[in-house]
Amino acid sequence: MSDKPIVAPASRRKFLRNAALIGGGAVLSGEQLFAREYGKNTPPLVPEWMQKTGRGVVTVPYGAPSKHEADNIRRTVEWLTPTPISSIGFAPIHKLKGIITPSALHFERHHAGVPEIDPAEHRLMIHGLCDNPLIFTMDDLMRFPSVSEIRFIECPANGGMEWRGAQMEALQFTHGMLSCSEWTGVRLSTLLAEVGIKPTAKWLLAEGADGAAMGRSIPIEKALDDVIVAYAQNGEMIRPEQGYPIRLVNPGWEGNTCVKWLRRLELGDKPWHLREETSKYTDLMPDGTSRQFTFVQESNSVVTSICPENPLRQKGYHELEGIAWSGRGKIKQVDVSFDGGVTWRAAKLKGMVLDKALTRFSYDWNWDGSPALIQSRSIDETGYVQPTIGQLRKVRGSSSIYHKNSIQTWQLFASGEVKNVQLD
Amino acid sequence: MSDKPIVAPASRRKFLRNAALIGGGAVLSGEQLFAREYGKNTPPLVPEWMQKTGRGVVTVPYGAPSKHEADNIRRTVEWLTPTPISSIGFAPIHKLKGIITPSALHFERHHAGVPEIDPAEHRLMIHGLCDNPLIFTMDDLMRFPSVSEIRFIECPANGGMEWRGAQMEALQFTHGMLSCSEWTGVRLSTLLAEVGIKPTAKWLLAEGADGAAMGRSIPIEKALDDVIVAYAQNGEMIRPEQGYPIRLVNPGWEGNTCVKWLRRLELGDKPWHLREETSKYTDLMPDGTSRQFTFVQESNSVVTSICPENPLRQKGYHELEGIAWSGRGKIKQVDVSFDGGVTWRAAKLKGMVLDKALTRFSYDWNWDGSPALIQSRSIDETGYVQPTIGQLRKVRGSSSIYHKNSIQTWQLFASGEVKNVQLD
Repeated sequence: MSDKPIVAPASRRKFLRNAALIGGGAVLSGEQLFAREYGKNTPPLVPEWMQKTGRGVVTVPYGAPSKHEADNIRRTVEWLTPTPISSIGFAPIHKLKGIITPSALHFERHHAGVPEIDPAEHRLMIHGLCDNPLIFTMDDLMRFPSVSEIRFIECPANGGMEWRGAQMEALQFTHGMLSCSEWTGVRLSTLLAEVGIKPTAKWLLAEGADGAAMGRSIPIEKALDDVIVAYAQNGEMIRPEQGYPIRLVNPGWEGNTCVKWLRRLELGDKPWHLREETSKYTDLMPDGTSRQFTFVQESNSVVTSICPENPLRQKGYHELEGIAWSGRGKIKQVDVSFDGGVTWRAAKLKGMVLDKALTRFSYDWNWDGSPALIQSRSIDETGYVQPTIGQLRKVRGSSSIYHKNSIQTWQLFASGEVKNVQLD
Repeated sequence: MSDKPIVAPASRRKFLRNAALIGGGAVLSGEQLFAREYGKNTPPLVPEWMQKTGRGVVTVPYGAPSKHEADNIRRTVEWLTPTPISSIGFAPIHKLKGIITPSALHFERHHAGVPEIDPAEHRLMIHGLCDNPLIFTMDDLMRFPSVSEIRFIECPANGGMEWRGAQMEALQFTHGMLSCSEWTGVRLSTLLAEVGIKPTAKWLLAEGADGAAMGRSIPIEKALDDVIVAYAQNGEMIRPEQGYPIRLVNPGWEGNTCVKWLRRLELGDKPWHLREETSKYTDLMPDGTSRQFTFVQESNSVVTSICPENPLRQKGYHELEGIAWSGRGKIKQVDVSFDGGVTWRAAKLKGMVLDKALTRFSYDWNWDGSPALIQSRSIDETGYVQPTIGQLRKVRGSSSIYHKNSIQTWQLFASGEVKNVQLD
């Protein structure tokens, strides 16, 4: 340790000013004065937690966050659904960093709650239009060659409350049905080669082992492309809320097709038209018809460092940050606006830009204290440009609850507070 | 669901054979027979967990693994150290998938236990040979532009018990002082620009706020290169065992230099020669001298899918898998051997090959039931080839406990059991 306490210049000025105020009272040493001014745990003072030993190794064999991070949790909106067994737990994306979502905070969406499955008794059956129908144990599945890929999963209802106008005063609720993990499992095409699909097989039914028997029809082209029968997430076995012991991961496609607690894959010649692809997960159009099988999550983005939960506390430099993603591939470009989309400035893409994964963007900004209308706009490698809500409503009306990927506007006030607003 | 139960061909034969044995006893339906033979939870039967609803959303707002994964935990070796406050919790790398280590399972190494730090009172002081010494709050640090990078951290004592011969009958203990995370924080060079380092500053002291005041000297070249003052790991704030609220991440360098609970950085003109860089974390050589400041973790690799904890249960196809890493950059190539290094075969690098991160390799193998001596050998982008223990001992003797990165041999028996052995 150096001989003399060093304090940052701004702090030193404050220290001296206050020290002067103490005047002719009790005589305090430099250390006591410093502690009174800056707190007893500020270096070069030795903080209280250095003056003792801490807890030993493997006191917590499976670790947990600091107790000071207790507000970094999934949250639900109680009025959204009549029962918590068919509801949504939103990821706290206003607090997350980088592109990996901790598995403990991955958003959750269930149709009949989280089943408690014994992996030793869980089976995956693949049958229907194939030569060699098979039933797999978990051990069977884990003997196949595996792949590991970082991919986002997004519920197609993400932002669904916002179709008719700004409803939710929190980024966690406007965009929190979105998470990104390193998924490990067997390529579905590998399992389909094992059963030998017949030429007449055009669709695949994926069914979960939950109380809702949640099922979706998947075109065979996707099934043979990049789909993973995943058993691990971020290095360890998938969490119960994410489909333990196995879930289907359809990269870039709506989360509902990524069937959790996967137990059955049936090959057929046409879609099944199950509940979750007829009365639900279809896009109600202005003419009263429903668009069906709109699988891809089109490109989307949102500013995360400024949002209702993250007001600005001071003028000056701010790294404006956000996330962008596209179900069609990589993010090519993100622009940001401070005037509600009148002018745009190119943001920087940070770190890795991966296929069908979250991509971080940032923009070095100096906030002068003026109000602003902050937006981001993503462009993916197919050239698709994220639309405004006005552009989206012209085509899709406002009766749908799905696939709302329009530009988000955060209204920043001079006070630093932030409100969710809609601009056409 | 299809009309008729479908059973895999092998299973169907078994089913029919057993059905025949039942003979003239009680009349059982097909479903009852099937359940008796394969378990009541095997599709196409409806498993018990589908016959009810499960737990609702955010019942666990911060999620946890399935209760069936309770053996996926960090473990310690009690005889290694006299006290758990200065000991090692090994990561269960025999169970991990992909390249991200779950934060809950990141290996832990402490010198005076895990301090309980209040982030609101924690400060980082940067002082010494600089123009503008500063004390930063956590809010200050989080206002700087951030970077997120996937990097491994490895304790230089990883494998340290093995210098004199095979000691540990578990991959978790031979190589488990190794983990890989997405780290987010401020580039140290950004903070050093803020304080304005003097031309005379050649070394940096990093000191932790634990009871040991764990400190290490870092050359200024590294400090200005890729070092991160990290506050987040895998998307959320760093865990207490990993240095909450901040740790230094020196990519590719020995874990001990990645000072946790970072509270002080002092710029100086020479190293400090602290306890952890003199009596410890130096390499005791055959001539009795100690190599000091051997910072880089040289390239290493190990087969993980076959190891004492993962015996082979059946002949036939096995995806031999493992991990490789290098503190000098990317992995270029991994070879595997089944005859103790007499002949080598090129493994496949799987997924992303990142700088100073774990890289997965695999080899499609058919085990014919013969005994084997299984090895892997990594080559990094600098051309460095992972040595045998014999090659390493010729140069370094066997008195060190640090920087043992030699080729690991797993002896596979005809029974499928696996033993840790050493071959020169």
